[in-house]
Amino acid sequence: MVVSFGARFLAVDWGTTNRRVFLIEGGEVARTERDGKGVTTVEDFAAEAAEMRGRFGDLPMLLAGMVGSNIGWRAAPYVPAPAGLDELADGLLWIDDRTAIVPGVSNAAPADVMRGEEVQLLGAVEAGLVPGDALLAQPGTHCKWAEMAGGRIHSFTTAMTGELFALLRAHGLLAAQLGAEVSLGPAFRDGLAEGAKRDLAASLFGIRAARMLGQRDDADAASFASGLLIGSDVAARLAVANHDTVHILADPALGGLYAAAIEAHGRAARLVDSPAAFAAGIIAIGSRS
Amino acid sequence: MVVSFGARFLAVDWGTTNRRVFLIEGGEVARTERDGKGVTTVEDFAAEAAEMRGRFGDLPMLLAGMVGSNIGWRAAPYVPAPAGLDELADGLLWIDDRTAIVPGVSNAAPADVMRGEEVQLLGAVEAGLVPGDALLAQPGTHCKWAEMAGGRIHSFTTAMTGELFALLRAHGLLAAQLGAEVSLGPAFRDGLAEGAKRDLAASLFGIRAARMLGQRDDADAASFASGLLIGSDVAARLAVANHDTVHILADPALGGLYAAAIEAHGRAARLVDSPAAFAAGIIAIGSRS
Repeated sequence: MVVSFGARFLAVDWGTTNRRVFLIEGGEVARTERDGKGVTTVEDFAAEAAEMRGRFGDLPMLLAGMVGSNIGWRAAPYVPAPAGLDELADGLLWIDDRTAIVPGVSNAAPADVMRGEEVQLLGAVEAGLVPGDALLAQPGTHCKWAEMAGGRIHSFTTAMTGELFALLRAHGLLAAQLGAEVSLGPAFRDGLAEGAKRDLAASLFGIRAARMLGQRDDADAASFASGLLIGSDVAARLAVANHDTVHILADPALGGLYAAAIEAHGRAARLVDSPAAFAAGIIAIGSRS
Repeated sequence: MVVSFGARFLAVDWGTTNRRVFLIEGGEVARTERDGKGVTTVEDFAAEAAEMRGRFGDLPMLLAGMVGSNIGWRAAPYVPAPAGLDELADGLLWIDDRTAIVPGVSNAAPADVMRGEEVQLLGAVEAGLVPGDALLAQPGTHCKWAEMAGGRIHSFTTAMTGELFALLRAHGLLAAQLGAEVSLGPAFRDGLAEGAKRDLAASLFGIRAARMLGQRDDADAASFASGLLIGSDVAARLAVANHDTVHILADPALGGLYAAAIEAHGRAARLVDSPAAFAAGIIAIGSRS
Protein backbone atom coordinates (compact mmCIF):
# COMPACT_ATOMS: atom_id res chain seq x y z
CA MET A 1 0.00 0.00 0.00
CA VAL A 2 1.33 3.44 -0.96
CA VAL A 3 0.53 6.64 0.87
CA SER A 4 -0.45 9.99 -0.60
CA PHE A 5 2.18 12.72 -0.49
CA GLY A 6 -0.40 14.98 1.18
CA ALA A 7 0.33 18.44 2.49
CA ARG A 8 3.93 17.88 3.58
CA PHE A 9 6.59 16.02 1.64
CA LEU A 10 10.13 16.29 0.33
CA ALA A 11 10.75 16.79 -3.38
CA VAL A 12 14.18 16.22 -4.90
CA ASP A 13 15.36 17.36 -8.33
CA TRP A 14 18.24 14.89 -8.52
CA GLY A 15 20.42 15.28 -11.59
CA THR A 16 23.72 13.89 -12.79
CA THR A 17 25.94 16.44 -11.06
CA ASN A 18 23.63 18.50 -8.82
CA ARG A 19 20.72 18.01 -6.47
CA ARG A 20 18.06 20.38 -5.16
CA VAL A 21 15.86 19.44 -2.19
CA PHE A 22 12.50 21.16 -1.60
CA LEU A 23 10.45 20.92 1.59
CA ILE A 24 6.84 21.25 0.44
CA GLU A 25 4.26 22.44 2.97
CA GLY A 26 0.64 23.27 2.14
CA GLY A 27 1.33 23.33 -1.61
CA GLU A 28 4.27 25.70 -1.31
CA VAL A 29 8.04 25.55 -1.05
CA ALA A 30 8.84 26.07 2.64
CA ARG A 31 12.59 25.57 2.26
CA THR A 32 15.02 24.58 -0.49
CA GLU A 33 18.71 23.69 -0.66
CA ARG A 34 21.05 22.91 -3.54
CA ASP A 35 24.22 20.84 -3.37
CA GLY A 36 26.67 18.96 -5.58
CA LYS A 37 25.50 15.47 -4.62
CA GLY A 38 24.46 14.44 -8.12
CA VAL A 39 23.75 10.77 -8.77
CA THR A 40 27.28 10.14 -10.04
CA THR A 41 28.65 10.97 -6.56
CA VAL A 42 26.23 8.71 -4.66
CA GLU A 43 26.69 5.01 -3.92
CA ASP A 44 24.04 4.34 -1.27
CA PHE A 45 20.81 6.05 -2.31
CA ALA A 46 18.83 4.71 0.66
CA ALA A 47 21.38 6.25 3.02
CA GLU A 48 21.17 9.56 1.14
CA ALA A 49 17.39 9.53 1.39
CA ALA A 50 17.65 8.89 5.13
CA GLU A 51 20.15 11.73 5.44
CA MET A 52 17.77 14.15 3.69
CA ARG A 53 14.90 13.04 5.93
CA GLY A 54 17.15 13.67 8.91
CA ARG A 55 17.74 17.23 7.77
CA PHE A 56 14.32 18.20 6.39
CA GLY A 57 11.86 15.97 8.27
CA ASP A 58 10.85 12.30 8.22
CA LEU A 59 8.40 12.76 5.34
CA PRO A 60 7.26 11.06 2.11
CA MET A 61 9.72 11.74 -0.68
CA LEU A 62 9.17 12.32 -4.41
CA LEU A 63 12.29 12.16 -6.60
CA ALA A 64 12.83 13.25 -10.21
CA GLY A 65 15.72 13.30 -12.66
CA MET A 66 18.65 11.00 -13.29
CA VAL A 67 18.00 9.33 -9.93
CA GLY A 68 15.48 7.32 -11.97
CA SER A 69 18.02 6.24 -14.61
CA ASN A 70 20.32 3.25 -14.85
CA ILE A 71 23.05 5.32 -13.16
CA GLY A 72 20.62 6.33 -10.37
CA TRP A 73 18.79 4.60 -7.55
CA ARG A 74 16.55 2.51 -9.76
CA ALA A 75 15.55 2.78 -13.45
CA ALA A 76 12.03 4.17 -13.82
CA PRO A 77 10.44 3.39 -17.20
CA TYR A 78 9.72 6.19 -19.67
CA VAL A 79 6.17 7.38 -20.25
CA PRO A 80 5.64 7.90 -24.01
CA ALA A 81 4.76 11.40 -25.23
CA PRO A 82 2.21 12.94 -25.46
CA ALA A 83 2.27 12.96 -21.66
CA GLY A 84 0.94 15.20 -18.89
CA LEU A 85 0.94 15.33 -15.11
CA ASP A 86 -1.61 12.51 -14.89
CA GLU A 87 0.59 10.08 -16.82
CA LEU A 88 3.61 10.99 -14.70
CA ALA A 89 1.65 10.46 -11.48
CA ASP A 90 0.30 7.14 -12.77
CA GLY A 91 3.81 6.05 -13.76
CA LEU A 92 5.57 6.63 -10.43
CA LEU A 93 8.14 4.00 -9.51
CA TRP A 94 7.73 3.22 -5.81
CA ILE A 95 10.92 2.40 -3.93
CA ASP A 96 8.96 1.81 -0.74
CA ASP A 97 5.53 2.92 0.50
CA ARG A 98 6.55 6.56 0.95
CA THR A 99 9.36 7.04 -1.58
CA ALA A 100 8.72 7.31 -5.33
CA ILE A 101 10.55 8.29 -8.51
CA VAL A 102 8.88 10.25 -11.31
CA PRO A 103 9.22 8.48 -14.70
CA GLY A 104 10.98 10.09 -17.64
CA VAL A 105 9.27 10.81 -20.96
CA SER A 106 10.16 9.29 -24.33
CA ASN A 107 9.52 10.20 -27.94
CA ALA A 108 9.40 7.19 -30.27
CA ALA A 109 10.18 8.77 -33.65
CA PRO A 110 12.62 10.38 -33.78
CA ALA A 111 13.94 8.57 -30.73
CA ASP A 112 14.35 10.89 -27.76
CA VAL A 113 14.28 10.73 -23.97
CA MET A 114 14.13 13.10 -21.02
CA ARG A 115 14.39 12.57 -17.28
CA GLY A 116 13.77 15.44 -14.86
CA GLU A 117 12.97 18.08 -17.47
CA GLU A 118 9.36 16.82 -17.75
CA VAL A 119 8.58 18.06 -14.23
CA GLN A 120 9.83 21.57 -15.08
CA LEU A 121 7.99 21.66 -18.41
CA LEU A 122 4.63 20.59 -17.02
CA GLY A 123 5.14 22.66 -13.87
CA ALA A 124 5.74 25.79 -15.93
CA VAL A 125 2.26 25.39 -17.45
CA GLU A 126 0.71 24.36 -14.10
CA ALA A 127 2.10 27.51 -12.44
CA GLY A 128 0.82 29.73 -15.24
CA LEU A 129 4.38 30.71 -16.17
CA VAL A 130 3.83 29.64 -19.79
CA PRO A 131 0.71 28.96 -21.92
CA GLY A 132 -0.53 25.40 -22.36
CA ASP A 133 0.27 25.55 -26.08
CA ALA A 134 3.83 26.78 -26.42
CA LEU A 135 7.42 26.04 -27.41
CA LEU A 136 9.72 25.65 -24.41
CA ALA A 137 13.51 25.41 -24.41
CA GLN A 138 15.73 24.09 -21.61
CA PRO A 139 19.31 24.97 -22.62
CA GLY A 140 22.17 23.04 -21.07
CA THR A 141 24.52 20.15 -21.76
CA HIS A 142 21.64 18.50 -23.60
CA CYS A 143 19.20 21.21 -24.65
CA LYS A 144 15.57 20.09 -24.60
CA TRP A 145 12.99 21.70 -26.88
CA ALA A 146 9.42 20.76 -26.02
CA GLU A 147 6.26 21.38 -27.95
CA MET A 148 3.49 21.75 -25.35
CA ALA A 149 -0.13 21.20 -26.44
CA GLY A 150 -3.14 21.39 -24.15
CA GLY A 151 -0.78 21.67 -21.19
CA ARG A 152 0.92 18.35 -22.00
CA ILE A 153 4.29 17.46 -23.54
CA HIS A 154 3.30 16.76 -27.12
CA SER A 155 6.77 16.02 -28.55
CA PHE A 156 10.35 17.08 -27.93
CA THR A 157 13.87 17.20 -29.35
CA THR A 158 17.19 17.07 -27.53
CA ALA A 159 20.32 18.69 -28.99
CA MET A 160 23.70 17.98 -27.40
CA THR A 161 24.75 21.57 -27.99
CA GLY A 162 26.35 22.15 -24.60
CA GLU A 163 28.17 18.84 -24.69
CA LEU A 164 29.65 19.56 -28.13
CA PHE A 165 30.92 22.90 -26.85
CA ALA A 166 32.48 21.21 -23.81
CA LEU A 167 34.12 18.53 -25.98
CA LEU A 168 35.59 21.09 -28.36
CA ARG A 169 36.87 23.19 -25.45
CA ALA A 170 38.58 20.23 -23.80
CA HIS A 171 39.96 18.22 -26.72
CA GLY A 172 41.18 18.46 -30.30
CA LEU A 173 42.19 21.14 -32.76
CA LEU A 174 40.18 24.04 -31.34
CA ALA A 175 40.71 23.48 -27.61
CA ALA A 176 43.64 25.88 -27.33
CA GLN A 177 41.57 28.66 -28.91
CA LEU A 178 38.39 28.26 -26.85
CA GLY A 179 39.58 29.06 -23.33
CA ALA A 180 38.03 32.53 -22.98
CA GLU A 181 34.70 33.29 -21.29
CA VAL A 182 31.68 33.51 -23.59
CA SER A 183 30.08 36.93 -23.82
CA LEU A 184 27.01 38.19 -25.66
CA GLY A 185 28.81 40.55 -28.04
CA PRO A 186 29.65 40.90 -31.74
CA ALA A 187 31.66 37.64 -31.93
CA PHE A 188 28.73 35.67 -30.44
CA ARG A 189 26.37 37.31 -32.93
CA ASP A 190 28.73 36.52 -35.82
CA GLY A 191 28.63 32.92 -34.60
CA LEU A 192 24.82 32.96 -34.63
CA ALA A 193 24.79 34.03 -38.28
CA GLU A 194 27.30 31.31 -39.14
CA GLY A 195 25.24 28.75 -37.20
CA ALA A 196 22.18 29.54 -39.27
CA LYS A 197 23.99 27.85 -42.19
CA ARG A 198 23.64 24.56 -40.28
CA ASP A 199 27.01 23.35 -41.53
CA LEU A 200 28.67 22.74 -38.18
CA ALA A 201 31.69 20.66 -39.21
CA ALA A 202 32.79 23.26 -41.76
CA SER A 203 31.98 26.28 -39.60
CA LEU A 204 34.04 24.81 -36.76
CA PHE A 205 37.10 24.42 -38.98
CA GLY A 206 36.60 28.07 -39.94
CA ILE A 207 37.47 28.99 -36.34
CA ARG A 208 40.91 27.50 -36.89
CA ALA A 209 41.29 29.06 -40.32
CA ALA A 210 40.29 32.53 -39.04
CA ARG A 211 43.11 32.28 -36.53
CA MET A 212 45.65 31.16 -39.14
CA LEU A 213 44.65 34.07 -41.39
CA GLY A 214 44.61 36.62 -38.55
CA GLN A 215 40.89 37.32 -39.01
CA ARG A 216 39.76 36.84 -35.38
CA ASP A 217 41.48 37.11 -31.99
CA ASP A 218 41.36 33.98 -29.89
CA ALA A 219 39.79 36.16 -27.17
CA ASP A 220 36.65 36.10 -29.35
CA ALA A 221 36.84 32.48 -30.52
CA ALA A 222 34.91 30.94 -27.61
CA SER A 223 32.08 33.46 -28.00
CA PHE A 224 31.97 32.81 -31.75
CA ALA A 225 31.94 29.03 -31.20
CA SER A 226 29.16 29.33 -28.61
CA GLY A 227 27.14 31.47 -31.03
CA LEU A 228 27.78 28.96 -33.79
CA LEU A 229 26.55 25.98 -31.76
CA ILE A 230 23.57 27.75 -30.18
CA GLY A 231 22.75 29.40 -33.50
CA SER A 232 22.64 26.10 -35.35
CA ASP A 233 20.51 24.52 -32.60
CA VAL A 234 18.02 27.41 -32.67
CA ALA A 235 17.96 27.57 -36.48
CA ALA A 236 17.14 23.87 -36.75
CA ARG A 237 14.32 24.14 -34.23
CA LEU A 238 12.74 27.35 -35.54
CA ALA A 239 12.80 25.98 -39.09
CA VAL A 240 9.98 23.63 -38.06
CA ALA A 241 8.30 25.43 -35.13
CA ASN A 242 5.87 28.24 -35.91
CA HIS A 243 5.55 29.78 -32.44
CA ASP A 244 6.08 33.53 -32.17
CA THR A 245 7.57 33.12 -28.71
CA VAL A 246 9.99 30.67 -27.14
CA HIS A 247 9.87 30.24 -23.36
CA ILE A 248 13.31 29.52 -21.92
CA LEU A 249 13.85 27.59 -18.70
CA ALA A 250 17.46 28.34 -17.77
CA ASP A 251 19.69 30.51 -15.62
CA PRO A 252 19.90 34.09 -16.92
CA ALA A 253 23.42 33.75 -18.40
CA LEU A 254 22.79 30.76 -20.66
CA GLY A 255 19.14 31.76 -21.10
CA GLY A 256 20.29 35.17 -22.34
CA LEU A 257 22.46 33.60 -25.03
CA TYR A 258 19.55 31.49 -26.27
CA ALA A 259 17.24 34.51 -26.11
CA ALA A 260 19.61 36.47 -28.36
CA ALA A 261 19.71 33.56 -30.82
CA ILE A 262 15.91 33.31 -30.87
CA GLU A 263 15.47 37.07 -31.31
CA ALA A 264 17.94 36.99 -34.22
CA HIS A 265 15.29 34.87 -35.99
CA GLY A 266 12.62 37.50 -35.35
CA ARG A 267 10.91 35.52 -32.59
CA ALA A 268 10.32 36.64 -29.01
CA ALA A 269 12.09 34.96 -26.09
CA ARG A 270 10.90 34.90 -22.48
CA LEU A 271 12.93 33.64 -19.53
CA VAL A 272 11.02 31.47 -17.04
CA ASP A 273 12.03 30.73 -13.43
CA SER A 274 12.98 27.06 -13.70
CA PRO A 275 13.16 26.15 -9.96
CA ALA A 276 9.67 27.63 -9.55
CA ALA A 277 8.50 25.56 -12.52
CA PHE A 278 9.99 22.40 -11.02
CA ALA A 279 8.32 23.07 -7.65
CA ALA A 280 4.93 23.62 -9.26
CA GLY A 281 5.30 20.43 -11.27
CA ILE A 282 6.34 18.21 -8.40
CA ILE A 283 3.65 19.63 -6.11
CA ALA A 284 1.07 18.86 -8.80
CA ILE A 285 2.36 15.29 -9.18
CA GLY A 286 2.41 14.85 -5.40
CA SER A 287 -1.17 16.04 -5.12
CA ARG A 288 -2.24 13.37 -7.65
CA SER A 289 -0.55 10.49 -5.82
CA MET B 1 71.03 31.38 -55.68
CA VAL B 2 68.62 28.48 -55.84
CA VAL B 3 68.97 25.46 -58.04
CA SER B 4 66.32 23.82 -60.23
CA PHE B 5 64.98 20.47 -59.01
CA GLY B 6 65.81 19.03 -62.45
CA ALA B 7 65.45 15.40 -63.39
CA ARG B 8 66.29 13.88 -60.01
CA PHE B 9 65.01 15.09 -56.64
CA LEU B 10 63.33 13.95 -53.44
CA ALA B 11 59.71 14.88 -52.77
CA VAL B 12 58.20 14.55 -49.31
CA ASP B 13 54.50 14.60 -48.41
CA TRP B 14 55.07 15.45 -44.74
CA GLY B 15 51.90 15.54 -42.67
CA THR B 16 51.04 15.80 -39.00
CA THR B 17 51.29 12.08 -38.23
CA ASN B 18 52.69 10.45 -41.37
CA ARG B 19 55.31 11.05 -44.02
CA ARG B 20 55.80 9.70 -47.53
CA VAL B 21 59.10 10.11 -49.40
CA PHE B 22 59.29 9.87 -53.18
CA LEU B 23 62.48 9.56 -55.21
CA ILE B 24 61.70 11.30 -58.52
CA GLU B 25 63.76 10.35 -61.56
CA GLY B 26 63.05 11.54 -65.10
CA GLY B 27 59.59 12.79 -64.18
CA GLU B 28 58.53 9.53 -62.57
CA VAL B 29 58.43 7.97 -59.12
CA ALA B 30 61.44 5.64 -58.94
CA ARG B 31 60.89 4.65 -55.32
CA THR B 32 58.55 5.60 -52.46
CA GLU B 33 58.37 4.84 -48.74
CA ARG B 34 55.85 5.73 -46.05
CA ASP B 35 56.53 5.99 -42.32
CA GLY B 36 55.08 7.42 -39.12
CA LYS B 37 57.54 10.30 -38.80
CA GLY B 38 54.93 13.06 -38.99
CA VAL B 39 55.99 16.58 -38.02
CA THR B 40 54.73 16.18 -34.46
CA THR B 41 57.35 13.45 -33.88
CA VAL B 42 60.29 15.45 -35.28
CA GLU B 43 62.45 17.91 -33.36
CA ASP B 44 65.41 18.42 -35.71
CA PHE B 45 64.11 18.82 -39.25
CA ALA B 46 67.56 19.46 -40.74
CA ALA B 47 68.76 16.16 -39.29
CA GLU B 48 65.67 14.40 -40.70
CA ALA B 49 66.35 15.88 -44.13
CA ALA B 50 69.97 14.70 -43.95
CA GLU B 51 68.77 11.24 -42.93
CA MET B 52 66.40 11.03 -45.92
CA ARG B 53 69.21 12.16 -48.26
CA GLY B 54 71.39 9.44 -46.75
CA ARG B 55 68.77 6.83 -47.61
CA PHE B 56 67.50 8.08 -50.97
CA GLY B 57 70.42 10.10 -52.42
CA ASP B 58 72.03 13.47 -51.81
CA LEU B 59 69.51 15.36 -53.95
CA PRO B 60 67.46 18.58 -53.98
CA MET B 61 64.38 18.20 -51.81
CA LEU B 62 60.84 19.55 -52.22
CA LEU B 63 58.60 19.32 -49.15
CA ALA B 64 54.84 19.76 -48.80
CA GLY B 65 52.29 19.56 -46.01
CA MET B 66 52.37 20.45 -42.33
CA VAL B 67 56.17 20.62 -42.50
CA GLY B 68 55.46 24.16 -43.73
CA SER B 69 53.25 25.09 -40.77
CA ASN B 70 54.05 26.65 -37.41
CA ILE B 71 54.40 23.13 -35.96
CA GLY B 72 56.75 22.12 -38.81
CA TRP B 73 60.22 23.08 -40.00
CA ARG B 74 59.34 26.64 -40.94
CA ALA B 75 56.02 28.40 -41.63
CA ALA B 76 55.49 28.93 -45.37
CA PRO B 77 52.93 31.65 -46.16
CA TYR B 78 49.60 30.73 -47.77
CA VAL B 79 48.96 31.52 -51.42
CA PRO B 80 45.41 32.91 -51.78
CA ALA B 81 42.93 30.98 -53.97
CA PRO B 82 42.38 30.91 -56.89
CA ALA B 83 45.78 29.25 -57.17
CA GLY B 84 47.48 26.83 -59.55
CA LEU B 85 50.81 25.12 -59.94
CA ASP B 86 52.48 28.36 -61.08
CA GLU B 87 51.53 30.21 -57.90
CA LEU B 88 52.72 27.32 -55.75
CA ALA B 89 56.07 27.19 -57.58
CA ASP B 90 56.44 30.98 -57.27
CA GLY B 91 55.65 30.82 -53.56
CA LEU B 92 58.21 28.18 -52.51
CA LEU B 93 59.88 28.84 -49.17
CA TRP B 94 63.58 28.07 -49.56
CA ILE B 95 65.26 26.59 -46.48
CA ASP B 96 68.62 26.53 -48.29
CA ASP B 97 69.61 26.54 -51.94
CA ARG B 98 68.38 22.99 -52.61
CA THR B 99 65.59 22.51 -50.06
CA ALA B 100 62.18 24.18 -50.42
CA ILE B 101 58.71 23.96 -48.89
CA VAL B 102 55.53 24.27 -51.00
CA PRO B 103 53.18 26.99 -49.64
CA GLY B 104 49.66 26.23 -48.45
CA VAL B 105 46.56 27.77 -50.01
CA SER B 106 44.06 30.05 -48.27
CA ASN B 107 40.48 31.11 -48.89
CA ALA B 108 39.67 34.57 -47.52
CA ALA B 109 35.88 34.41 -47.20
CA PRO B 110 34.82 32.16 -45.69
CA ALA B 111 38.19 31.76 -43.98
CA ASP B 112 39.84 28.47 -44.86
CA VAL B 113 43.33 27.02 -45.19
CA MET B 114 45.01 23.91 -46.59
CA ARG B 115 48.56 22.64 -46.48
CA GLY B 116 49.61 19.58 -48.46
CA GLU B 117 46.24 18.89 -50.06
CA GLU B 118 46.91 21.53 -52.76
CA VAL B 119 49.63 19.36 -54.30
CA GLN B 120 47.27 16.39 -54.58
CA LEU B 121 44.43 18.49 -55.98
CA LEU B 122 46.49 20.16 -58.69
CA GLY B 123 48.41 16.96 -59.36
CA ALA B 124 45.17 15.07 -59.98
CA VAL B 125 44.35 17.49 -62.79
CA GLU B 126 47.96 17.54 -64.07
CA ALA B 127 48.00 13.73 -64.28
CA GLY B 128 44.68 13.68 -66.12
CA LEU B 129 43.04 11.78 -63.26
CA VAL B 130 40.29 14.41 -62.98
CA PRO B 131 38.98 17.17 -65.30
CA GLY B 132 40.21 20.75 -64.87
CA ASP B 133 36.71 21.86 -63.88
CA ALA B 134 35.50 19.52 -61.16
CA LEU B 135 34.55 19.03 -57.54
CA LEU B 136 37.17 17.12 -55.57
CA ALA B 137 36.86 15.73 -52.03
CA GLN B 138 39.71 14.67 -49.74
CA PRO B 139 38.05 12.90 -46.79
CA GLY B 140 39.97 12.60 -43.53
CA THR B 141 40.30 14.23 -40.13
CA HIS B 142 39.63 17.54 -41.87
CA CYS B 143 37.81 16.82 -45.11
CA LYS B 144 38.71 19.22 -47.93
CA TRP B 145 36.25 19.97 -50.73
CA ALA B 146 37.80 21.85 -53.63
CA GLU B 147 36.14 23.48 -56.56
CA MET B 148 38.62 23.25 -59.46
CA ALA B 149 38.26 25.68 -62.39
CA GLY B 150 40.59 25.82 -65.38
CA GLY B 151 42.86 23.33 -63.63
CA ARG B 152 43.35 25.62 -60.63
CA ILE B 153 41.97 25.59 -57.08
CA HIS B 154 39.13 28.09 -57.35
CA SER B 155 37.80 27.85 -53.79
CA PHE B 156 37.52 25.24 -51.07
CA THR B 157 35.81 24.26 -47.82
CA THR B 158 37.15 22.20 -44.93
CA ALA B 159 34.83 20.23 -42.65
CA MET B 160 36.21 18.70 -39.45
CA THR B 161 34.07 15.64 -39.98
CA GLY B 162 36.71 13.06 -39.08
CA GLU B 163 37.83 15.00 -36.02
CA LEU B 164 34.26 15.25 -34.69
CA PHE B 165 33.88 11.49 -35.08
CA ALA B 166 37.16 10.90 -33.23
CA LEU B 167 36.15 13.30 -30.41
CA LEU B 168 32.78 11.62 -29.98
CA ARG B 169 34.38 8.17 -29.96
CA ALA B 170 36.91 9.13 -27.31
CA HIS B 171 34.98 11.41 -24.95
CA GLY B 172 31.54 12.23 -23.67
CA LEU B 173 28.08 10.69 -23.64
CA LEU B 174 28.36 8.59 -26.80
CA ALA B 175 31.91 7.26 -26.44
CA ALA B 176 30.84 3.99 -24.81
CA GLN B 177 28.46 3.28 -27.71
CA LEU B 178 30.82 4.04 -30.61
CA GLY B 179 33.55 1.44 -30.18
CA ALA B 180 32.58 -0.86 -33.07
CA GLU B 181 34.12 -0.79 -36.55
CA VAL B 182 32.29 1.27 -39.16
CA SER B 183 30.81 -0.71 -42.02
CA LEU B 184 28.94 0.33 -45.13
CA GLY B 185 25.61 -1.30 -44.32
CA PRO B 186 22.05 -0.37 -43.38
CA ALA B 187 23.06 1.49 -40.17
CA PHE B 188 25.52 3.66 -42.11
CA ARG B 189 22.82 4.38 -44.70
CA ASP B 190 20.31 5.26 -41.98
CA GLY B 191 22.93 7.68 -40.67
CA LEU B 192 23.29 9.25 -44.12
CA ALA B 193 19.56 9.94 -44.25
CA GLU B 194 19.66 11.45 -40.77
CA GLY B 195 22.69 13.55 -41.73
CA ALA B 196 20.82 15.08 -44.65
CA LYS B 197 18.70 16.92 -42.03
CA ARG B 198 21.85 18.90 -41.13
CA ASP B 199 20.86 18.97 -37.45
CA LEU B 200 23.96 17.35 -36.02
CA ALA B 201 23.58 18.20 -32.32
CA ALA B 202 20.07 16.73 -32.20
CA SER B 203 20.85 13.73 -34.40
CA LEU B 204 23.80 12.84 -32.18
CA PHE B 205 21.64 12.80 -29.06
CA GLY B 206 19.30 10.51 -30.96
CA ILE B 207 22.06 7.87 -30.89
CA ARG B 208 21.84 7.85 -27.11
CA ALA B 209 18.04 7.89 -27.13
CA ALA B 210 17.85 4.99 -29.60
CA ARG B 211 19.91 2.94 -27.17
CA MET B 212 17.76 3.87 -24.19
CA LEU B 213 14.61 2.91 -26.11
CA GLY B 214 16.11 -0.32 -27.49
CA GLN B 215 15.81 0.88 -31.09
CA ARG B 216 19.38 0.19 -32.23
CA ASP B 217 22.15 -2.18 -31.10
CA ASP B 218 25.38 -0.51 -30.04
CA ALA B 219 27.10 -2.75 -32.62
CA ASP B 220 25.49 -0.46 -35.24
CA ALA B 221 25.93 2.87 -33.44
CA ALA B 222 29.41 3.68 -34.81
CA SER B 223 28.30 3.01 -38.39
CA PHE B 224 25.19 5.15 -37.87
CA ALA B 225 27.29 7.98 -36.36
CA SER B 226 29.78 7.80 -39.22
CA GLY B 227 26.93 7.96 -41.72
CA LEU B 228 25.41 10.88 -39.84
CA LEU B 229 28.63 12.92 -39.88
CA ILE B 230 29.63 12.06 -43.45
CA GLY B 231 26.03 12.50 -44.59
CA SER B 232 25.76 15.97 -43.12
CA ASP B 233 29.12 16.98 -44.63
CA VAL B 234 28.11 15.72 -48.07
CA ALA B 235 24.61 17.23 -47.86
CA ALA B 236 26.00 20.67 -47.01
CA ARG B 237 28.45 20.56 -49.90
CA LEU B 238 26.10 19.20 -52.55
CA ALA B 239 23.47 21.76 -51.60
CA VAL B 240 25.67 24.40 -53.24
CA ALA B 241 27.74 22.42 -55.77
CA ASN B 242 26.12 21.50 -59.09
CA HIS B 243 28.64 18.96 -60.35
CA ASP B 244 27.24 15.59 -61.48
CA THR B 245 30.39 13.83 -60.28
CA VAL B 246 32.56 14.12 -57.19
CA HIS B 247 36.18 12.92 -57.45
CA ILE B 248 37.39 11.44 -54.17
CA LEU B 249 41.06 11.41 -53.16
CA ALA B 250 41.20 8.90 -50.31
CA ASP B 251 41.98 5.33 -49.41
CA PRO B 252 39.29 2.90 -50.62
CA ALA B 253 37.72 2.34 -47.17
CA LEU B 254 37.01 5.96 -46.28
CA GLY B 255 36.59 6.85 -49.94
CA GLY B 256 33.93 4.16 -50.26
CA LEU B 257 31.91 5.66 -47.38
CA TYR B 258 32.00 9.10 -49.00
CA ALA B 259 31.11 7.57 -52.38
CA ALA B 260 28.02 5.96 -50.85
CA ALA B 261 27.02 9.30 -49.32
CA ILE B 262 27.46 11.11 -52.64
CA GLU B 263 25.54 8.46 -54.58
CA ALA B 264 22.70 8.72 -52.06
CA HIS B 265 22.28 12.28 -53.39
CA GLY B 266 22.01 11.01 -56.97
CA ARG B 267 25.51 12.16 -57.92
CA ALA B 268 28.35 9.98 -59.24
CA ALA B 269 31.49 9.35 -57.21
CA ARG B 270 34.90 8.38 -58.58
CA LEU B 271 37.87 7.28 -56.48
CA VAL B 272 41.22 8.77 -57.50
CA ASP B 273 44.69 7.40 -56.61
CA SER B 274 45.88 10.08 -54.17
CA PRO B 275 49.60 9.15 -53.95
CA ALA B 276 49.73 9.23 -57.77
CA ALA B 277 48.06 12.64 -57.68
CA PHE B 278 50.58 13.93 -55.14
CA ALA B 279 53.51 12.65 -57.22
CA ALA B 280 52.19 14.32 -60.39
CA GLY B 281 51.69 17.59 -58.52
CA ILE B 282 55.09 17.70 -56.89
CA ILE B 283 56.85 16.72 -60.15
CA ALA B 284 55.03 19.56 -61.90
CA ILE B 285 56.05 22.05 -59.20
CA GLY B 286 59.63 20.77 -59.29
CA SER B 287 59.77 21.20 -63.06
CA ARG B 288 58.75 24.86 -62.67
CA SER B 289 61.41 25.68 -60.08
